[in-house]
Amino acid sequence: MTQSFQVVPIGHVRKINDRVLIHVEHPFADALLGLGDFSHIWVLYWFHENDIPEKRATLRVHPMKNPKNPLTGVFATHSPARPNLIALTRCRIRSIEDTVIELDDIDALDGSPVLDIKCYIPDSGEDRDVRVPEWIHQGREK
Amino acid sequence: MTQSFQVVPIGHVRKINDRVLIHVEHPFADALLGLGDFSHIWVLYWFHENDIPEKRATLRVHPMKNPKNPLTGVFATHSPARPNLIALTRCRIRSIEDTVIELDDIDALDGSPVLDIKCYIPDSGEDRDVRVPEWIHQGREK
Repeated sequence: MTQSFQVVPIGHVRKINDRVLIHVEHPFADALLGLGDFSHIWVLYWFHENDIPEKRATLRVHPMKNPKNPLTGVFATHSPARPNLIALTRCRIRSIEDTVIELDDIDALDGSPVLDIKCYIPDSGEDRDVRVPEWIHQGREK
Repeated sequence: MTQSFQVVPIGHVRKINDRVLIHVEHPFADALLGLGDFSHIWVLYWFHENDIPEKRATLRVHPMKNPKNPLTGVFATHSPARPNLIALTRCRIRSIEDTVIELDDIDALDGSPVLDIKCYIPDSGEDRDVRVPEWIHQGREK
């Protein structure tokens, strides 16, 4: 039997009119202390709409759903179809009130379960020799 | 009942002598196609040594285990004690052979279950107005 681990939502993404919010569940309120000292956060959320065996068995995709991009292993992409449906995205905090974090924006659907929030600490100039493949610059199919 | 999601290890961290490796499980081999075109990856792993109710109930810590750092909510830190024990770390790829990724280094223990690998794409100069609290520069207690 394959070992597995349980994760639980610590909140949910809410998109209400033009506002982008994370509603943190009340039992986790204490974990927000000091978050307002950061301008940006990492948000880890669950690609809940892909939580079916076929999507979790997807190992190769055309990045950004563009057939012109080469077939690529999901670990070399940020595809929402992958074995563990964890999304990683950086967001700017607009405000925090009680257990509601307002963001500038997030690339998540309304209702997405949030698994974790981590403070964002910029890299100290290590980005100078980063290498990425050509398709990163191609974008989605027009 | 609280909803929960299952995650499974897609590989494990191995530290053998001076080498730092991720052994990806064979069923996930196809997901590695194209990863060698990147110099860096995000590695999401499980803080398996903290997988006990007390650690998952920890909501506030002194960052970097330094009592001089202010008591801070775990969502405003990268603490290994947190509701969902997901670690996030950026690593440089040294080589990839079959299902073994050799890294320069990783801040994980030998045996840590790896949940996901994502390509690292540097930010496009958005880091200019990032704000972090003072304790980020304090480090661990001497």
